[in-house]
Amino acid sequence: MTSIFGNLPTVAYEGPETHNPLAYRWYDKDRVVLGRTMREHLRFTVCYWHSFVMNGSDPFGAPTIMRPWSGRDGLDAARQKADAAFDLFRVLDVPFYSFHDRDVVSEGATFQESVSNLDAIADVLGQKQDETGVHLLWGTANLFSHPRYMAGAATNPDPEVFAYAAATVKHCLDVTRRLGGANYVLWGGREGYETLLNTDLGRELDQMGRFLNLVVEYKHKTGYTGTILIEPKPKEPTKHQYDFDTATVYGFLKRYGLENEVKLNLEANHAQLAGHSFEHEIALASALGILGSLDVNRGDPLIGWDTDQFPNSLPDTALALYYVLKSGGLGNGGLNFDAKIRRQSIDAEDLVHAHVGGIDLCARALLVAAGMIEDGRLARHVEDRYAGWNSARGKALASSMSLEDIARDVAGRSDGPQPKSGRQEYLENLLNSYF
Amino acid sequence: MTSIFGNLPTVAYEGPETHNPLAYRWYDKDRVVLGRTMREHLRFTVCYWHSFVMNGSDPFGAPTIMRPWSGRDGLDAARQKADAAFDLFRVLDVPFYSFHDRDVVSEGATFQESVSNLDAIADVLGQKQDETGVHLLWGTANLFSHPRYMAGAATNPDPEVFAYAAATVKHCLDVTRRLGGANYVLWGGREGYETLLNTDLGRELDQMGRFLNLVVEYKHKTGYTGTILIEPKPKEPTKHQYDFDTATVYGFLKRYGLENEVKLNLEANHAQLAGHSFEHEIALASALGILGSLDVNRGDPLIGWDTDQFPNSLPDTALALYYVLKSGGLGNGGLNFDAKIRRQSIDAEDLVHAHVGGIDLCARALLVAAGMIEDGRLARHVEDRYAGWNSARGKALASSMSLEDIARDVAGRSDGPQPKSGRQEYLENLLNSYF
Amino acid sequence: MTSIFGNLPTVAYEGPETHNPLAYRWYDKDRVVLGRTMREHLRFTVCYWHSFVMNGSDPFGAPTIMRPWSGRDGLDAARQKADAAFDLFRVLDVPFYSFHDRDVVSEGATFQESVSNLDAIADVLGQKQDETGVHLLWGTANLFSHPRYMAGAATNPDPEVFAYAAATVKHCLDVTRRLGGANYVLWGGREGYETLLNTDLGRELDQMGRFLNLVVEYKHKTGYTGTILIEPKPKEPTKHQYDFDTATVYGFLKRYGLENEVKLNLEANHAQLAGHSFEHEIALASALGILGSLDVNRGDPLIGWDTDQFPNSLPDTALALYYVLKSGGLGNGGLNFDAKIRRQSIDAEDLVHAHVGGIDLCARALLVAAGMIEDGRLARHVEDRYAGWNSARGKALASSMSLEDIARDVAGRSDGPQPKSGRQEYLENLLNSYF
Amino acid sequence: MTSIFGNLPTVAYEGPETHNPLAYRWYDKDRVVLGRTMREHLRFTVCYWHSFVMNGSDPFGAPTIMRPWSGRDGLDAARQKADAAFDLFRVLDVPFYSFHDRDVVSEGATFQESVSNLDAIADVLGQKQDETGVHLLWGTANLFSHPRYMAGAATNPDPEVFAYAAATVKHCLDVTRRLGGANYVLWGGREGYETLLNTDLGRELDQMGRFLNLVVEYKHKTGYTGTILIEPKPKEPTKHQYDFDTATVYGFLKRYGLENEVKLNLEANHAQLAGHSFEHEIALASALGILGSLDVNRGDPLIGWDTDQFPNSLPDTALALYYVLKSGGLGNGGLNFDAKIRRQSIDAEDLVHAHVGGIDLCARALLVAAGMIEDGRLARHVEDRYAGWNSARGKALASSMSLEDIARDVAGRSDGPQPKSGRQEYLENLLNSYF
Ligand SMILES: [Co+2]
Ligand SMILES: [Co+2]
Ligand SMILES: [Co+2]
Ligand SMILES: [Co+2]
Ligand SMILES: [Co+2]
Ligand SMILES: [Co+2]
Ligand SMILES: [Co+2]
Ligand SMILES: [Co+2]
Repeated sequence: MTSIFGNLPTVAYEGPETHNPLAYRWYDKDRVVLGRTMREHLRFTVCYWHSFVMNGSDPFGAPTIMRPWSGRDGLDAARQKADAAFDLFRVLDVPFYSFHDRDVVSEGATFQESVSNLDAIADVLGQKQDETGVHLLWGTANLFSHPRYMAGAATNPDPEVFAYAAATVKHCLDVTRRLGGANYVLWGGREGYETLLNTDLGRELDQMGRFLNLVVEYKHKTGYTGTILIEPKPKEPTKHQYDFDTATVYGFLKRYGLENEVKLNLEANHAQLAGHSFEHEIALASALGILGSLDVNRGDPLIGWDTDQFPNSLPDTALALYYVLKSGGLGNGGLNFDAKIRRQSIDAEDLVHAHVGGIDLCARALLVAAGMIEDGRLARHVEDRYAGWNSARGKALASSMSLEDIARDVAGRSDGPQPKSGRQEYLENLLNSYF
Repeated sequence: MTSIFGNLPTVAYEGPETHNPLAYRWYDKDRVVLGRTMREHLRFTVCYWHSFVMNGSDPFGAPTIMRPWSGRDGLDAARQKADAAFDLFRVLDVPFYSFHDRDVVSEGATFQESVSNLDAIADVLGQKQDETGVHLLWGTANLFSHPRYMAGAATNPDPEVFAYAAATVKHCLDVTRRLGGANYVLWGGREGYETLLNTDLGRELDQMGRFLNLVVEYKHKTGYTGTILIEPKPKEPTKHQYDFDTATVYGFLKRYGLENEVKLNLEANHAQLAGHSFEHEIALASALGILGSLDVNRGDPLIGWDTDQFPNSLPDTALALYYVLKSGGLGNGGLNFDAKIRRQSIDAEDLVHAHVGGIDLCARALLVAAGMIEDGRLARHVEDRYAGWNSARGKALASSMSLEDIARDVAGRSDGPQPKSGRQEYLENLLNSYF
Repeated sequence: MTSIFGNLPTVAYEGPETHNPLAYRWYDKDRVVLGRTMREHLRFTVCYWHSFVMNGSDPFGAPTIMRPWSGRDGLDAARQKADAAFDLFRVLDVPFYSFHDRDVVSEGATFQESVSNLDAIADVLGQKQDETGVHLLWGTANLFSHPRYMAGAATNPDPEVFAYAAATVKHCLDVTRRLGGANYVLWGGREGYETLLNTDLGRELDQMGRFLNLVVEYKHKTGYTGTILIEPKPKEPTKHQYDFDTATVYGFLKRYGLENEVKLNLEANHAQLAGHSFEHEIALASALGILGSLDVNRGDPLIGWDTDQFPNSLPDTALALYYVLKSGGLGNGGLNFDAKIRRQSIDAEDLVHAHVGGIDLCARALLVAAGMIEDGRLARHVEDRYAGWNSARGKALASSMSLEDIARDVAGRSDGPQPKSGRQEYLENLLNSYF
Repeated sequence: MTSIFGNLPTVAYEGPETHNPLAYRWYDKDRVVLGRTMREHLRFTVCYWHSFVMNGSDPFGAPTIMRPWSGRDGLDAARQKADAAFDLFRVLDVPFYSFHDRDVVSEGATFQESVSNLDAIADVLGQKQDETGVHLLWGTANLFSHPRYMAGAATNPDPEVFAYAAATVKHCLDVTRRLGGANYVLWGGREGYETLLNTDLGRELDQMGRFLNLVVEYKHKTGYTGTILIEPKPKEPTKHQYDFDTATVYGFLKRYGLENEVKLNLEANHAQLAGHSFEHEIALASALGILGSLDVNRGDPLIGWDTDQFPNSLPDTALALYYVLKSGGLGNGGLNFDAKIRRQSIDAEDLVHAHVGGIDLCARALLVAAGMIEDGRLARHVEDRYAGWNSARGKALASSMSLEDIARDVAGRSDGPQPKSGRQEYLENLLNSYF
């Protein structure tokens, strides 16, 4: 039996001029850019959650997207889904995938059955990885869909839910390690509150700190060398989520002594919901030393919820990748499409178009970003702007002088500092010239 | 010559039934609530910036509010303004005021002249404090209005601006100490960026950390015992401000080793602009041990900029004060009206109405919040919800067990945890019953 | 068999001092306010959709709220649901309910079967109405949940969907008329677009105009005397919805000649999503002569999607009802709770608490609003502000003078008009004194 | 004396490869695209308001941008400003400019003096127009900056303000006609309310309708053939503005019988503040027959106020121009840069960079949009999607059948309509392939 993508050939690079919608116009995987192939830079990742689980439903509508495994539980459906998944990976020629435990196989009636379900499908996935050379970018546990987690997992008022979540993460981490996952992700979709009226915020933060420390200790005990990642999101599904944004998670990691142990999986859509640009979150995580991996799916700036759309803005994506390149790349991380097709995109081919477009956009954005790096004018402009801090005077201000020293010095001068143009419009034009 | 409020009597408490718009209906300053007078709890503060500097202008309109000192610089105008200010404090019968250096007297042509202007008016203010018994809640330096600060003060690319700002803060801190200010505030209105294209974000954060450490060292050296406060705001005037919100500033303080030295001055309007409720910011700062003082001015939930309106929502303010009371009160802090009258409120009396309404609302909110504390049902509900964590089992999960211990334990059970109602609607009704 | 509310007594008025959470503190149904009973003013309506269909699911989580009829189709489940519904109406002592066709009974395998399902349950509902004296405020057809409507109902690119929707509305209108429904509502949840790229906006508006004209013609032909209502919403589920807000729908009605035929069902949450206050939408609809009925469920100002929460803000609701009273009341309309309990509110009792709180809040708000009307100071202030327009001069400006006349007149004067205070803070204080 | 741009040569087209920041890379004015030159299509317009009046101030900061005429009133300063303005037009080689009366010369002490000031500078401008061949795209009166307008111009509670505004518009329209202005614009920055508490919304709408009718009558009486344009904006400076968006203004025009007399000047930034994309507003105005002219300045999607930045997004601008081209172009209208340089862009050259970047971006966007039109795939896709409506069956549904006819027909069929993919991702990829 062929998969739902069974009759599609592998998408190939045909160059910018092609009119073939199922060809890559920019993604030429072995092309070397700044010393690495595009494949190595971008580490494209298809995500099970959105590509094989989402069904087009929304708060006002029934599912519209029907797959052979839709509505079916158990291992048979899981195998059929895995066949389709790896067939899509083949069609797209991507090197990575990612999953939640519940994406790859349904939960069992008991904890033990859930464990055994996941172990069984992990064997299937491992075999397919071996056969295809596709790798696992990260695994994660779904600690938000089941009713038991409705009031949080680690931050649940009921310690038994904390325990259940901890046991689930242990097993999912085991499976991720076994499958060679490069990272393990935690997204705290229910770690937050609906109303402060029933919430002890300080206690919940401590529970979350404890939980993460348990995970990190276990990682070291098992010798797992992947990176532990937290994925920030400010809200949705809960009204307030504790992992609000990069800066918030940084403070949390510092508070619980984990800033050298955990990095971030940043999502473009979540950045926007928190009031930030994607490049802001990347540049900040980079400055704080906690940049891990990216979910490149975008939101809609006019919409207040997580639309998780495939990226389609070249300027936005190029800027994001520029800061990634400046940060030295993503290391263990990659570009994950935590993106779903629209409710009306009901054909299997729509899923292929979506990924082809997303891959091609990111590839083109990489070329733009690499061009910006090579050209160097932008970076030089920034360096020059701060040049004063590299002088002896700047260094003294930054280190040895006391406030009285500085005040005495300023009082002794006859003039104050003069404003200099920030040249924003010139720089925006320069940026546009790279596209 | 009388001040612009010269013919107004001191506003007195007349009780809820009065129709006199210039009476307090709820603020009965010596009434004892939870063991302290309302005056001691609330520490109402009139702010110079909005009350005596703002003139009704907006980005599309010229000033509409004309005062005798409008458009005049120098000490004469400053004295006239101070007369009006202390006359308003008398009319309102408030115990505190607050100011930026530039609010109380205009900047001089040189740094030295600015220093001497501020020293001169500080003498006037000190004398008025002595005469009236009004105290200074906090002083602060305006490091955002002058063109020299257009690209930041501490975070300016030009080290000379950093120096100028540092010298200015030193002097303003000296003056604040001399006037017995209970706190010293830093608001980083230009500490942020307009575009990442011309910004080195990591470097600027380091500059800001350095700056704050200079201030804290100087505070200790001079034996000043007031509290250093940062006022978070996510954006406006700059596109992105580094002191985004409570969580962000907490991470910043941890990064630069200052989490035990600096607290927060939280503003309701800024909380909203950051995507939070005011009570969230208060509860979080309280949990993190950095709750300092409050600017109680509200925003408009349908407006995307800082409208700085006088508080008028009893539910919102009561919730805010409930979390303040739970946190043990504000200590050195107080309730500051960092609030401005509307562009069309051009009469001096409008400023009085605005404060009377704000004071009365907060007083009424205090009574509601105290009632909630005394009643205890809300707090008990929260405690009960987390009761499991106080059991031996809960304590083991929170401290001694490893991830494997927990997983082994969960795997050995035949059932999972059961969801329990969060009872949000019941609690919201309970809350409304306190009003 | 008892319903899920079977052991609850009817909620009774006990006055503001009661601590009984299942009593009314303010809703004293026969109390006369401004010449009508509270029951007549408020016309409280329980809605089937949220109260008996919603299951606590969200885009990231499975259902949490389980009812005896959950997951079951057909007439047996529908009867059981109806029993519970009318039992809730009894517990709450409300005079009205509202429904979509698909709420009261599941869709059949064919159009004919859907029709016969609805007819059958309508007989049950009619009998229950007779037995209990509960009336139908409005019926409506769900033209948004089924996949066939994913690209719109009236505005679908496929005319067969238009036809299917039209036939469905005809039948649902027939049923509503048979059950004595006071209104018939149209909510165009899918009448909009996800992307302009695949949309002919002008054509779709014409389709929607045609559809509404068909409905209005049929209403007249059948002699139905209820009011046809459109419920505006700016977005969600679609990115852009054509019935954006009051002003937009007014323009649409004018374009298609329907401004005297159709009124609006305004929802507080939808107002907020469109960038308006609820009172704005009410006051505008009143000014335009198209105020029909209200969905009083609120949103969360910090959340960008339709949370459909029970109202809990006394100030907001009192202002809304003030403008309703000024408009002469709602006529055929009522106060509908298009509101759902939170995902964590999984007990049947939570649904009762939610309604009791909502009813009580609106009742209290009515008392406040009526007090504002009786007091009259607010209205007088507004009248006085515009008094100049009632002078001979004002009337001439408003009617007889030409632009040249006016210009000549202004040029002949030596001074311009003087600004007068808008007194916003005074008025906000006055408003707060009514609470 | 040379102007502040005096040493700059006219910016010339050098093609995409140039590194000269003061050259056009895409704007090749005489290049023919779809049968018209780029100059004819785009009708670039420099606006006095932002380019020669704005000084970099913001609600928290003093002016930063100093020009020779800054802070000076009267005709000398106005002439100096006009010299600089026309010199910038020369440098940029643009065909049009636009102004408010108060931009070109300061207000006088009396109405008569204001009139004579404007007449005097209009003579200067007319002469410069003759000398340079630069034309006036539109004139407008500033009815929002002066304190007299703080509570509205046409919608002021004081009829004398209405009269003053009317007289001012009459004169400004006279001047615009005399200078050959292609359009006359009305932007109702203060036509709205700060609080409903002091506002009679219905009365104010009538005042606004009356005002606009006066203007239209006068236009016809004088034989002026330019287009009257309203510029919608939802809020800022007022909390709510009556000209909220395209749909709202359409309803207003219909209400006051002006839908064939008045068109819209749409601004990208205002579209965003109203919750719309720019292309939505354009497509809707086109469908409603009221598309007039464009202010192409953008906002920042993360910022809640009018940043009025020069356009820099190729995808957004190309889509906007695609809908303009589909609508047959702008006729009398043009592309106006109602855009200001940033507070930190203090050099005269920054203003040139800003315009060069904006012009080039729009030119490039025109090429993309024209390519989309010529390629035709996108338009064909939309046509095909609605093809069913062109069949006999579709036409009957759209015109002759009654609701009963349709219902009978649907009931007679054995199957319902089938959903078809909306192909959004395919179309988004197609769109990106045009860039
Ligand atoms: Co997301
Ligand atoms: Co994600
Ligand atoms: Co503020
Ligand atoms: Co403040
Ligand atoms: Co809703
Ligand atoms: Co509704
Ligand atoms: Co604008
Ligand atoms: Co504009």
